[in-house]
Amino acid sequence: MPKYHRVVIIGVGLLGGSIGLALRQTGLARQVVGVGRSADSLQLAKARGAVDLIETQLQAACADADMVIIGTPVQSIAQLVIQSCQTRLAEDCVVTDVGSTKATITAQLGDAQHQRFCGSHPMAGSEKTGVAYATADLFQGRRTIVTPVKQTSPRVLEKTEEFWGLLGSIVTRMDPIEHDHAVASISHLPHVVAAALSAATPTQLIDLAGTGWSDTTRVAAGDVELWRQIISENRQPLLQSLRHYATSLDQWIQAIEHNDQARLVELLTAGKHNRDSLASQDV
Amino acid sequence: MPKYHRVVIIGVGLLGGSIGLALRQTGLARQVVGVGRSADSLQLAKARGAVDLIETQLQAACADADMVIIGTPVQSIAQLVIQSCQTRLAEDCVVTDVGSTKATITAQLGDAQHQRFCGSHPMAGSEKTGVAYATADLFQGRRTIVTPVKQTSPRVLEKTEEFWGLLGSIVTRMDPIEHDHAVASISHLPHVVAAALSAATPTQLIDLAGTGWSDTTRVAAGDVELWRQIISENRQPLLQSLRHYATSLDQWIQAIEHNDQARLVELLTAGKHNRDSLASQDV
Repeated sequence: MPKYHRVVIIGVGLLGGSIGLALRQTGLARQVVGVGRSADSLQLAKARGAVDLIETQLQAACADADMVIIGTPVQSIAQLVIQSCQTRLAEDCVVTDVGSTKATITAQLGDAQHQRFCGSHPMAGSEKTGVAYATADLFQGRRTIVTPVKQTSPRVLEKTEEFWGLLGSIVTRMDPIEHDHAVASISHLPHVVAAALSAATPTQLIDLAGTGWSDTTRVAAGDVELWRQIISENRQPLLQSLRHYATSLDQWIQAIEHNDQARLVELLTAGKHNRDSLASQDV
Repeated sequence: MPKYHRVVIIGVGLLGGSIGLALRQTGLARQVVGVGRSADSLQLAKARGAVDLIETQLQAACADADMVIIGTPVQSIAQLVIQSCQTRLAEDCVVTDVGSTKATITAQLGDAQHQRFCGSHPMAGSEKTGVAYATADLFQGRRTIVTPVKQTSPRVLEKTEEFWGLLGSIVTRMDPIEHDHAVASISHLPHVVAAALSAATPTQLIDLAGTGWSDTTRVAAGDVELWRQIISENRQPLLQSLRHYATSLDQWIQAIEHNDQARLVELLTAGKHNRDSLASQDV
């Protein structure tokens, strides 16, 4: 018997689409409904088997839903949480999202939403956007951070964690502010570093790029508007990470200027040490 | 009939080993001889089929060789070019290397070497080192820069280019100094950027890393001593690239500080534009 009666995915992109594929391929949901503004994306989501039904009206989509996932860009999430909570959801329905930032969203919600909503951030994705790139196993073995606040209903937290576990994800709890500082460092800083590196490369040299440049800049191909919103939502934590990084780069410049071989070895070793610690869980 | 009678590979690591595998699997060489200081690496090279014969003495290895490739770390290349040219090579033998820097090496060579030697830099590789990771198709479709100087014998240049073409590589000519500036930007800067990012990441957060952090820092896992040598050989061009990059990062910091949305879109778009231009040749 399916675990969920009616799952609504608002914004069926890479993440929303991957959730739909996973739910449908495992038989976890009796019905998956896709909601969005782009008719093309919704049609493609249906053609790819990520949703059973397409709806353009939130009210109709959410009727009797027992799980709602918001997969839109971060700056529209809070409003969609509020709107979803005003529809006729099933009594035990849980609302969550897949946004990359959490503090600003949570701050916009009130008690009415905390009875339904717990934030989520699956640490999975790609520089590719759109349901065209969605895969059923996107969350398998990947970390998902859930971000309850003290008003969050314990039942909602539990159901949110259960949901990600069913998709194969490893769940970690964090406070929204702690989350935003963590992802500033582990996700948003790498994006800025990669985008700045890509932009700083003389165009006529790109033809010579090997795997080094290619890997290091890969995320810079990400969607501009998605990232503008993420950076804008997470300004202060990201600024802190960026300033710390700029100081590190300055240490490299000093070491190379002074031809300080011992310091170069230290700096290279520190980078290798952290990167190697990921190796066993390499992705 | 094999193209080469006896090919000598000095330093059978990832690149040298991949050359050996390619030559032997295509039947281009009648005999591939591996020379090196690590008996373990040489034994593994033989076991993996990258070389036919192992030699520890350069003199013996090079007797009657018609192609010599030096695959050692950059700071030992010039000396090995000089030593190789003093052995009893076949009359038309060509000596080349696979080093990541060229100006310092070339400056250490004289007319005697330029009759034999032309520098090469295949833009292929990995953060992995050692013949264990060698593959016969490593150079297939990848760029190799050859770096003749005005004293380089035209015959040697021609034969060096032919060699890389036979391994499936696309050959580009550059002056050694022009080469070093280009790779400072397209290869050495990405390494420093990745290593600094990896080192700047709080260790307890690495567990949360998604593909973004993982891709952006991948090259930081590279061998410390190899990279110490590369950075030391290419200090001035790399410093210039690093300072330019630090200025770019500062523009990001300013844009985020001032919450300048239009500027953020410009910066993100510039990074995406350059990265997307690689997409068709993605690696």
